[in-house]
Amino acid sequence: GLSETMPELLAEPRWREKLDLLVTHAAETGAGERDAETVELLAPIESPGKIICVGLNYIEHVEEGGQERPENPILFSKFTNAITGPDSEIAWDPELTAEVDYEAELALVVGDRTRRVAPEEATDHLAGYTVANDVSARDLQFADDQWVRGKSLDGFCPLGPSIVTEDELDDPEACSIWTEVNGERLQDSSTSNLIFDIDTLVSFCSDAFTLEPGDVILTGTPPGVGAFREPPIYLQDSDTVEVGIEGIGTLTNHCGHD
Amino acid sequence: GLSETMPELLAEPRWREKLDLLVTHAAETGAGERDAETVELLAPIESPGKIICVGLNYIEHVEEGGQERPENPILFSKFTNAITGPDSEIAWDPELTAEVDYEAELALVVGDRTRRVAPEEATDHLAGYTVANDVSARDLQFADDQWVRGKSLDGFCPLGPSIVTEDELDDPEACSIWTEVNGERLQDSSTSNLIFDIDTLVSFCSDAFTLEPGDVILTGTPPGVGAFREPPIYLQDSDTVEVGIEGIGTLTNHCGHD
Repeated sequence: GLSETMPELLAEPRWREKLDLLVTHAAETGAGERDAETVELLAPIESPGKIICVGLNYIEHVEEGGQERPENPILFSKFTNAITGPDSEIAWDPELTAEVDYEAELALVVGDRTRRVAPEEATDHLAGYTVANDVSARDLQFADDQWVRGKSLDGFCPLGPSIVTEDELDDPEACSIWTEVNGERLQDSSTSNLIFDIDTLVSFCSDAFTLEPGDVILTGTPPGVGAFREPPIYLQDSDTVEVGIEGIGTLTNHCGHD
Repeated sequence: GLSETMPELLAEPRWREKLDLLVTHAAETGAGERDAETVELLAPIESPGKIICVGLNYIEHVEEGGQERPENPILFSKFTNAITGPDSEIAWDPELTAEVDYEAELALVVGDRTRRVAPEEATDHLAGYTVANDVSARDLQFADDQWVRGKSLDGFCPLGPSIVTEDELDDPEACSIWTEVNGERLQDSSTSNLIFDIDTLVSFCSDAFTLEPGDVILTGTPPGVGAFREPPIYLQDSDTVEVGIEGIGTLTNHCGHD
C-alpha cells in the first residue's frame, strides 16, 4: 500500500514507479476501482506544507490593477485551511467580507525536496499540475495591505480536480485558462502569458525556501478578475464558479453565505 | 504512548490529562527521563498547520517604523520550513540578503480546533506559550511589499525552548520580553504593551481561519529592532542572538552564512 496523504506519497522514494505499478494493477484487475458517479472527489492535496502564491504574473492583470510590472516574482501565501475540493461550497460570512473574487490559476505541485535549484532543472522537481481558484476577499486583502488574511478564509483555495503528472502534460505554458461564473466567461487567457515562467518561479522560490513534496505553488491569475471590472463583479450567494485549464481539467464550486 | 508530533498530540482528546499522567509517571519511575546536558532540543512544534504572524502590535515599534497605529491586527505569515529549535544555526546566503534582523515575540500555541471564538473564550482554546524569533530579511521584506518571503527563509523562525502550558503562566500579558545580540540588550519591553491583546488576536484570527491544534500565532515584536536603529544593526555571521520572555524561557541561536 501507498501513503495516505499526497505529501507523504510524494515523499516516498520512486513514487512515480510505485504509482505506475498501482495504476497498471488496478487497470488489469479492477482493484481499487470506484464508480465516478458516486465518489466525492476531495482536493488532491489537503495539507501541503505550504501554499506559495505568485501575484501580478500576467501583464494584463498587472495593468488592470494599475500596478507596475514586477522586477521579481511577488510571493504571498494562503493558509492550508483554505483548501477545498471540487464541487464543494465556498462559504463566507457576509459580515466579514462583501467582496469575494475569483482567480483561475495554474498550480504546480512539488515532487521532491528542493533547495536552490537552477531554472533549467526546476521542472525535474515537480510532481505535476492542478487547477486552483485563488479566491480573494478584496476588502480584507486591500485593507490589510498584507494579503494573507483575505486570501485564506476557509474554503478560499479550491484545488483539483486532480493532479496531472508532469509527464502527461505536453506544455504547461501553452494551455488556455479561464473562469466562468454562472456560465459567463470572465477570465479567458493562456498560460503562455505568464510573466515569470514555471522554471523561474520554482528556482526563485527554492532560493528562499526549501520546497517539500506536496508544496503547492499558485502561479498567478490572468486578467478579468471581478474587482477591476466596471462595475466590479463579486461572487454572490448561490453563484457557481468554474475555473479551468486546458489539459488539466475544470474545477467547479458553489458559493454560499454562512 | 502519545502521538509523535505536537500538532497530533494537541489534537488528541483530553491531551492535558494524558500529558499530566505521563509526567507524573515519569517523575515517579524515571521512565522517559533524559540527561538535559546531552539531548538536543528541537523546536517544540516543527510542522504546525500554519504560522500566523501579527505585525505592528507594540505602539513604540509602530512609531519606530514610521507607521500608523493599525485599526485591526495586521496579519502576515511565515512558512513552516522557517522553524528551527534552540541553539541551532540561523544560516543565510549573503548574496540573497544583507539585512537580517531579529524580533522577539510571544508565540501562542493553539490547543483546540477553533472557529469564530469570542474574545472572552479565546484562551480556553490555547495550549500554551513559547518564545519566537521572527527573523526578517528586511531587504526582501520591503522590496516585495508582501512580507512572507523575507520572513520565511529556512531557519528564520526559531521557536522554543519549550511550550509553557496555559495553566502554568500566571499572566502572559505581564512578562518582560527582550533580545540580546552578543550579550547586548537591543529589545527590552513587556507583553503588557501589546496593542491587540491575546484574546482579541485569537478571536480575530478565528473569524477568518479555522485554527487547528498546533497552529502558532506570533503576537508581534516590541521596539528596538535593528532595521530602525541609527545606524541600523543587522545580524552578522557568527553573531549569537537570544530572545527571551519572563516565565517562558530564552531561545538562543547562532548566525552564519551558508
